[in-house]
Amino acid sequence: MDKIYNFSATAAPLPEAVINKVREQAFNYNGRGISVMELTPGTKEYTKILTETELSLRKILDIPTGYTVLFLEAPTAAQYSAIPLNLMSDRRSADYVVTGQASKAAQSEAKKFGDIAIAVTSAGASPIFSTVPKVERSDFRPDADYAYICYNDFIYGTKFSSIPDTGSIPLAVDMTSSILSEPIDFSKVALLFAGGECNVGVPGLTTVIIRGDLLGGCRADTPTMLNYKKIVDSSSHEFSPSALSIYIAGQVFEWVDSMGGLEEMKRRSEKRASLIYDFLDGQSQDYYTSFTDKKCRSATNVVFTTGDSELDHKFIAEAAEAGFINLAGHSSVGGMRASLYNSMSQDGVAALVEFMKKFKKDNPRFKV
Amino acid sequence: MDKIYNFSATAAPLPEAVINKVREQAFNYNGRGISVMELTPGTKEYTKILTETELSLRKILDIPTGYTVLFLEAPTAAQYSAIPLNLMSDRRSADYVVTGQASKAAQSEAKKFGDIAIAVTSAGASPIFSTVPKVERSDFRPDADYAYICYNDFIYGTKFSSIPDTGSIPLAVDMTSSILSEPIDFSKVALLFAGGECNVGVPGLTTVIIRGDLLGGCRADTPTMLNYKKIVDSSSHEFSPSALSIYIAGQVFEWVDSMGGLEEMKRRSEKRASLIYDFLDGQSQDYYTSFTDKKCRSATNVVFTTGDSELDHKFIAEAAEAGFINLAGHSSVGGMRASLYNSMSQDGVAALVEFMKKFKKDNPRFKV
Repeated sequence: MDKIYNFSATAAPLPEAVINKVREQAFNYNGRGISVMELTPGTKEYTKILTETELSLRKILDIPTGYTVLFLEAPTAAQYSAIPLNLMSDRRSADYVVTGQASKAAQSEAKKFGDIAIAVTSAGASPIFSTVPKVERSDFRPDADYAYICYNDFIYGTKFSSIPDTGSIPLAVDMTSSILSEPIDFSKVALLFAGGECNVGVPGLTTVIIRGDLLGGCRADTPTMLNYKKIVDSSSHEFSPSALSIYIAGQVFEWVDSMGGLEEMKRRSEKRASLIYDFLDGQSQDYYTSFTDKKCRSATNVVFTTGDSELDHKFIAEAAEAGFINLAGHSSVGGMRASLYNSMSQDGVAALVEFMKKFKKDNPRFKV
Repeated sequence: MDKIYNFSATAAPLPEAVINKVREQAFNYNGRGISVMELTPGTKEYTKILTETELSLRKILDIPTGYTVLFLEAPTAAQYSAIPLNLMSDRRSADYVVTGQASKAAQSEAKKFGDIAIAVTSAGASPIFSTVPKVERSDFRPDADYAYICYNDFIYGTKFSSIPDTGSIPLAVDMTSSILSEPIDFSKVALLFAGGECNVGVPGLTTVIIRGDLLGGCRADTPTMLNYKKIVDSSSHEFSPSALSIYIAGQVFEWVDSMGGLEEMKRRSEKRASLIYDFLDGQSQDYYTSFTDKKCRSATNVVFTTGDSELDHKFIAEAAEAGFINLAGHSSVGGMRASLYNSMSQDGVAALVEFMKKFKKDNPRFKV
């Protein structure tokens, strides 16, 4: 096996330049023979890394000054609980847009804590969320504590074309699978969170960006680790993330910056996706199909199938042997999914398309 | 600077053999050119690492079969909320032994969720917890849902001589700063947790070991990430820890095993601590003193002071220059603290004692 291209949706590779830096520096930090993992929260060196990482993220995302950035050591789904606990007032109501399993899971978790409505959903008669519906201000209750969307659904391969405008209702956005792949319009965002498993490349590290005026309204029985305000105010470092996680994330942010920032990431991301989508759209016969509405296609997660589950399995197995790994679609939809995060090269995608062509040729299929 | 000895209490170094293995393997896993971080939860390779890590821990700790092991990506203090949420019945009562700030913080967090009593405390007139009181079954309410202790207090340098017997009341034990340093008598333990920042060497990864019959009684509004049963039963991998954390922890467990297991770790740990304690006890004049009750001395965290805060600062600064880093005591007690986790060599401790002697000679002090 020559080269491995990893198309995983939930454990993206790091950019090669970052891997090399981490390999060289992480276990001999600043040439001192100590590991970054040994840097103790609260010490000068730890604080330097944390500060630089935050500044670097603020620069590339162009985060307005009124927003607080938190790096939390926690699974992505922890925010499904943290958001209602932090954003709900005494009214305890919120409106969710449900466009896939991630937003559905978030909505389901939030129901533990208040009156949660589904404002809009793309679920139809079929359990497949193949599109992103139009979202208007009038879809939300005017007195809802907050509105919620998942910007890019990495199971169904759909994406909002832009962040909806919810007016005076604070909007919480799950950006897990699209952060660092395009600029973000913070004028429409009250809270944004992103798990580390995609473009950040550090599973287990969640980034939360929250408008300052929304910090502080937690219920008294909120577990401290889910209380943003308590974490921001804490001087004990109990909730500080591990130095290694922060260090690697910081290297990724610097890499994004050095490559030209989010505009360039967006250009590359769309280029990568179009290599596959153009091939899919240009087939003379539809050997590969996709249920994803063309108007809502994700640039980071491309979902397709041969329409025959046995053939799909053969595709996934042969692709893995050829070095294209983790192409199986999510278990709930089957088929294939190619996740094209920032570290994926255009060459990798082009090679996958060549493999798709070859597989098609080698495995002729007669439609019934 | 020749060699750095890191005495950090909350971000312990990894053993050198583990560092070398991680450096070589973590970014080129099994020679495949991919990073361990890219291993996707649920895949064969990820599951293999997770299974081997658990088996390795089960072997060295000799965990009875009726206990479930969870590896959670979360700050240590997350368990201060998880324990009451998981172990409380409808009675919602629990009794805490408070012997330092960690157990006090755990007790304070638990009060959010029920009727929490302090069964025993070593806090006297002074805010210093210098000893571990005797704990008897009769100290606990017979109908308490659980009892709680912190086995080793890494701020005050105290340790229980053995796990107290709480009879039929399930005992939850915070083992963060002593896990892997001595065998554990599970017949007295209902739940054990340990943050990864000490002997495990992976900050952000918490190990929870819980007796099977105690899994499952969570309140309906428990955030899923704090619900042990939900995490155990989940097939979605939403709460799976990062492959890198598990991989490194597994390497540490294997290293402990290859060195001779917990009996050997205990021998080494006591040997390291006695190098300092014997020196402290053998001083002709008490240049260095310690408030820690001799009967309750921790083997992992040795707390001492010159009795003069300016001199203490000088000690800490000069020690750091000489390569002995992170010797400052916790901010609440000041002075010095040498944390001697498994990766610390006897040579490192002996060198520190030599430094202590030299500092004493170079900085004569006349008692008023």
